[in-house]
Amino acid sequence: MPLEKIKVIAFDADDTLWVNETFFRKAEEEFCALLEEYLPKEEANKLLFDVEMQNLPLYGYGIKPFTLSLIEAAIKISNGNMTIDLVQRLIEKGKAMLQEPIELIDGIDETLRRLSEKYRLVMATKGDLLDQERKLINSGLENYFHHIEIVSDKTEKQYKKLVKHLDITENEFLMVGNSLKSDILPVLNIGAHAFHIPFHTTWAHEMIDDKIDHPNFRSFAKASELLQIL
Amino acid sequence: MPLEKIKVIAFDADDTLWVNETFFRKAEEEFCALLEEYLPKEEANKLLFDVEMQNLPLYGYGIKPFTLSLIEAAIKISNGNMTIDLVQRLIEKGKAMLQEPIELIDGIDETLRRLSEKYRLVMATKGDLLDQERKLINSGLENYFHHIEIVSDKTEKQYKKLVKHLDITENEFLMVGNSLKSDILPVLNIGAHAFHIPFHTTWAHEMIDDKIDHPNFRSFAKASELLQIL
Repeated sequence: MPLEKIKVIAFDADDTLWVNETFFRKAEEEFCALLEEYLPKEEANKLLFDVEMQNLPLYGYGIKPFTLSLIEAAIKISNGNMTIDLVQRLIEKGKAMLQEPIELIDGIDETLRRLSEKYRLVMATKGDLLDQERKLINSGLENYFHHIEIVSDKTEKQYKKLVKHLDITENEFLMVGNSLKSDILPVLNIGAHAFHIPFHTTWAHEMIDDKIDHPNFRSFAKASELLQIL
Repeated sequence: MPLEKIKVIAFDADDTLWVNETFFRKAEEEFCALLEEYLPKEEANKLLFDVEMQNLPLYGYGIKPFTLSLIEAAIKISNGNMTIDLVQRLIEKGKAMLQEPIELIDGIDETLRRLSEKYRLVMATKGDLLDQERKLINSGLENYFHHIEIVSDKTEKQYKKLVKHLDITENEFLMVGNSLKSDILPVLNIGAHAFHIPFHTTWAHEMIDDKIDHPNFRSFAKASELLQIL
């Protein structure tokens, strides 16, 4: 694997640089508890996921779409019988999520510091720009990155645009992330490199069953292991 | 004014390429009418604006923040007495806004076509990426632009980052837009060029009183006039 050709390393943000999915799982649990009088938790969670999937093409990713889906799902679950007070609480929940303190993934600071001395690093995320910028500034990791690349979705087409935008070729590009579906498969499919560092929690929408066997692919247990080969 | 040095022209999107503010004004009017039993329209509109301004640092710009602010403002205006059905209607209103058909600004297609033969054009917007990408694709203008630049806010700092990211100098950069506050003043302040094409409707948040007298500034009544000097 010709790693010496790599010029730009793009890091996914949520659950690769800092903890994120954990907050969504916690919010979902609290949501289901608030609506338990109308529907058992498991069914409420499934209905919420269905509403999120229906809204995804229109709303995209992030906490604001999630908040709107929480309200819409609560109306459905309660058959319109929820209180206005509960609507207010869901809005407050969304605002609280937007202000969660940053919890860095173990070893990421030192790893980025050392990699930034050899490579151009960018942060590549499909989240909300304002939200991701705020997290990056609060994380203390901002100086390691040349810039942020926001994509509306992590598809082959979007990665091709990203590589073109970076003025490099596919085999000079390496993506590092926790989602096989978003950070790995589309990147390998365009002929670039992709390294996987799993996070312990994965959103159902990001789960895939594939076993990956590809010369441009590697998997690591933690971020600091990247330094052994890069 | 050394216009011959200009390499990249950035166009604002909403109300520069296509109609936008008109839809927000219409939504605000409908919102106030829905809540007239609780508060006179003018006061309701003012309260909505206050809620939007409070939420702006946390939510940023776009239709999803607007929808969340509509719900929050309605709860305040009705003192928690609105119906859940009205919450549902506000969510639907937001979704309808995200799907409004594109209405191009007069003369913009031909103007962009001809300018794209001489300059690198980018679209620079502080809106929501997914929403702006969808509008760009539906507008038929996509091929005139090298790429989209999304900024979280249109400040001097963000414009400096943008110019650096484009690998050009300030005097090689020209911004074209309808908002003096967002598209013109911060651009002139960093030493770049800025051309103003007013739109008939301006959001209160974007209004300023300044008269601009600057060698790098010009104002035009319509887009096609750009072709007379560029």
